Amino acid sequence: MASLKSQSCEACQIGAPKVSENELDELLLEIEEWTLIKEPIKKLQKVFNFKNYKDSLNFSNKIAKLADEEDHHPQIILEWGKVTVTWWSHKIEGLHHNDFICAAKTDQLFKQD
Amino acid sequence: MASLKSQSCEACQIGAPKVSENELDELLLEIEEWTLIKEPIKKLQKVFNFKNYKDSLNFSNKIAKLADEEDHHPQIILEWGKVTVTWWSHKIEGLHHNDFICAAKTDQLFKQD
Repeated sequence: MASLKSQSCEACQIGAPKVSENELDELLLEIEEWTLIKEPIKKLQKVFNFKNYKDSLNFSNKIAKLADEEDHHPQIILEWGKVTVTWWSHKIEGLHHNDFICAAKTDQLFKQD
Repeated sequence: MASLKSQSCEACQIGAPKVSENELDELLLEIEEWTLIKEPIKKLQKVFNFKNYKDSLNFSNKIAKLADEEDHHPQIILEWGKVTVTWWSHKIEGLHHNDFICAAKTDQLFKQD
């Protein structure tokens, strides 16, 4: 399978399949620094640290651009020197393959910084 | 006293005074749509709603610009059509007069949208 970061999100409709438990374990290996949170909705979350506000703001804006390109919008928490990104699929109230693609792309954008 | 939105933040150092309970009640009247949260650190929080992602992103960036101008940085939670802004003063682990100034200025930026 192509690496997650080279894929694009597909349209996610209400009723689209959530990733199965088996898929979840495999996909998490590809984005191993992300935390799986359960609230009880499953979400992917990662904290990115920066040395100043400007860099954290720039990163937030890169993620927002990615969100527009993929038409998939995460929660972005911007604070001084810290950006917390959380991906999940509202329409299915859980994790879709799209969320793993976007998490991998988020990591890629961080590495490019 | 000049209205909050016409004031500027002063440098807030460790040990600077938190607003007193009496001041708190008075200041909250000037920013009445903000919620006082206690976690147990007191913070000011407000949710702003937008009709699309672009508008929520633009508003987030306006708040970030205000943060830089005032050298006081809130937590900004950006989601599709929704921005949650939370002001507090890390150095005193609570609310400083600055937070009320910035909350009033946040409202002003929203009205200008």
